[in-house]
Amino acid sequence: MREVVVIGVGMHPFGKYLEKGLKELGREAVWRAVEDAGVSLPDIQVAYVSNALAGLITGQEGVRGEVVLRDAGFSGIPIINVENACASASTAFRGAWLEVASGMADVALALGVEKLYTEDTRQSIKALAADSDLELGRLGFQFTSYYAMELKKYMQRSGATREHFAQVVVKNSLNGSLNPHAQHRRPLSLAEVLGSRVIADPLTLYMCSSMADGAAAAILCAKEVAHKFTSGPLVEVATCCLRSGMFRRPGEETESSTTITVKQAYDMAGVGPEDIDVVEVHDAMAPAELMIYEELGLCGPNEGPMLIEEGATTLKGRIPVNPSGGLAAKGHPVGATGLAQLSEIVWHLRGQAGARQVEGARVGMVHNVGGFVEWDNAANTITILKR
Amino acid sequence: MREVVVIGVGMHPFGKYLEKGLKELGREAVWRAVEDAGVSLPDIQVAYVSNALAGLITGQEGVRGEVVLRDAGFSGIPIINVENACASASTAFRGAWLEVASGMADVALALGVEKLYTEDTRQSIKALAADSDLELGRLGFQFTSYYAMELKKYMQRSGATREHFAQVVVKNSLNGSLNPHAQHRRPLSLAEVLGSRVIADPLTLYMCSSMADGAAAAILCAKEVAHKFTSGPLVEVATCCLRSGMFRRPGEETESSTTITVKQAYDMAGVGPEDIDVVEVHDAMAPAELMIYEELGLCGPNEGPMLIEEGATTLKGRIPVNPSGGLAAKGHPVGATGLAQLSEIVWHLRGQAGARQVEGARVGMVHNVGGFVEWDNAANTITILKR
Repeated sequence: MREVVVIGVGMHPFGKYLEKGLKELGREAVWRAVEDAGVSLPDIQVAYVSNALAGLITGQEGVRGEVVLRDAGFSGIPIINVENACASASTAFRGAWLEVASGMADVALALGVEKLYTEDTRQSIKALAADSDLELGRLGFQFTSYYAMELKKYMQRSGATREHFAQVVVKNSLNGSLNPHAQHRRPLSLAEVLGSRVIADPLTLYMCSSMADGAAAAILCAKEVAHKFTSGPLVEVATCCLRSGMFRRPGEETESSTTITVKQAYDMAGVGPEDIDVVEVHDAMAPAELMIYEELGLCGPNEGPMLIEEGATTLKGRIPVNPSGGLAAKGHPVGATGLAQLSEIVWHLRGQAGARQVEGARVGMVHNVGGFVEWDNAANTITILKR
Repeated sequence: MREVVVIGVGMHPFGKYLEKGLKELGREAVWRAVEDAGVSLPDIQVAYVSNALAGLITGQEGVRGEVVLRDAGFSGIPIINVENACASASTAFRGAWLEVASGMADVALALGVEKLYTEDTRQSIKALAADSDLELGRLGFQFTSYYAMELKKYMQRSGATREHFAQVVVKNSLNGSLNPHAQHRRPLSLAEVLGSRVIADPLTLYMCSSMADGAAAAILCAKEVAHKFTSGPLVEVATCCLRSGMFRRPGEETESSTTITVKQAYDMAGVGPEDIDVVEVHDAMAPAELMIYEELGLCGPNEGPMLIEEGATTLKGRIPVNPSGGLAAKGHPVGATGLAQLSEIVWHLRGQAGARQVEGARVGMVHNVGGFVEWDNAANTITILKR
């Protein structure tokens, strides 16, 4: 397998864009990434396109990537449409990585694009509900209530309080206020977060990610030919691991799928949690960050609350987490989220993250999970990037 | 890149199964392929799952592969959901091939599964219409009328008659009558085909593929470890090419995307059309076979009618095409079709195709296309398999 580098990333800012469709959102992200990479369109030999919900929201069920990329100017290349719920974009990234690593292509594009806002938002809400297994859907299951239940259990075992949970949002909203691609850019106070409407106890409104429109793209290249396109700093893909959930009985206590996946990723990348300088985690509900710290090995069992108390995960802390603002500040256009997380890490490793730059970051990690099947995440992804 | 072999294939017969869902259909295909390959489930390290329309038909928009494969007994492997309209299953096959060829996995599964029949078939018809670009959808475009227009032009330039078109269906319905996996298994006469209801002139009812439920799966393995699982004949994947459509103006006469793709495939596989012993082509409307003969280089320009007159593409002919019965006889469960075509070729290369066996077949080809974006197929795939 060849060494693979990311030579360009680009985003359409996340937010509400009623006047734009998949094509307009996707085109902007792709063209920004193309410009960033210094490639021209014909250099790109293969594309992976992720979108999670257009079939239900806009009726564009088939060949979404071909429709978006034709509009963006592509012709006659392999285009693979992939889906893995909220982890769709990391799945697209993994595909592009494998194409280049295997030698099948020298330059590959990964694009994640999602359009959730419509004139009738009930349509989108319904689509999100259908995102998990149908049987759970029939039971009234949805992600917010699941997270709430898990967080209640976490409070019991770790001593985490509502204030700890709110503190995560305070940190991330401050980061988001520095991110021009974020949907919500106002720093929130502890009182505001705690005082906002209860969605599913212990979750309040500001703790939950919001739906968004948006797109993000990355251009991957064989390291051996990257000099043809860019003289800038190269960001290596150390690994990109994807695993479906584990079979387990309800209530069975085993290592989480995320933990199993991150151990595999550390192993493949030849690093440990102590080597990681900056992390983007999938905090569809921001307080889950505390549990994810542990799952990723960034702290020991039940030490999540301590990390947030100490400010260890702030931009200036020991191990900054979600410098982008995370899903709650940045917005969560499902099929685009993973590539936005990856773009963020690329900017930090290059020293291009502006006011939210994590100083001296050389190794970064993205945690992006999606879906829910029989009491576990459907898809777990961990990507490790190195300067 | 390593040599890759197909060590197992399996299908759920195509047809109308109102009582079955994606899980039941998918499970049967996977377990049959697993048994055929001599592997056990934990041997399978990665899976690509294709489905084109469940989002619109059943509401299962997200993580379809995880839902189906969890039910089939899989736990903790990378599962990639792919979609490329009618070419979805060949796209899944290509992904599995790349995983093994690259060395990322030794054993990979490709599964195509589709559920189109519901109590209310209008739902499925609506979903099929949405399968192409939205703008064409708004213009009332759908595949049957597009094929009809293309066939009219073909009649003008080649001299093909309605009788030639019907003769393709007569040939394929005879083949389908010998195929236990086919939806329609009654041999049709020329008079029956010509006399059936006109759908879009020159197409009559029996010339059109029907929607179906079904699933098909293949297990791919590195050639160097295949002996661990099977002592049977190995079928090598010589190549699997995927290309999106070409940019062209309406009416512009250039080489078709299929021709460009097949030339690339011949080149990669080191064979020419004269080396091919058996072919499965994507004849969503059976008469299109005549045009596809030319596109694949099986005959010269405008010689399609001659091929069918001579019986060259019958089971005993010079170059048998659609021994399975093709899409019109076999049925067309969109996201499963490509893997059914591939399974058919594997059976022929192994000498296991029963009464429809093409004698001595050593090199086979699958043509599977999907979607439609700006006057061209969205996705073109050509796979070449060798004994």
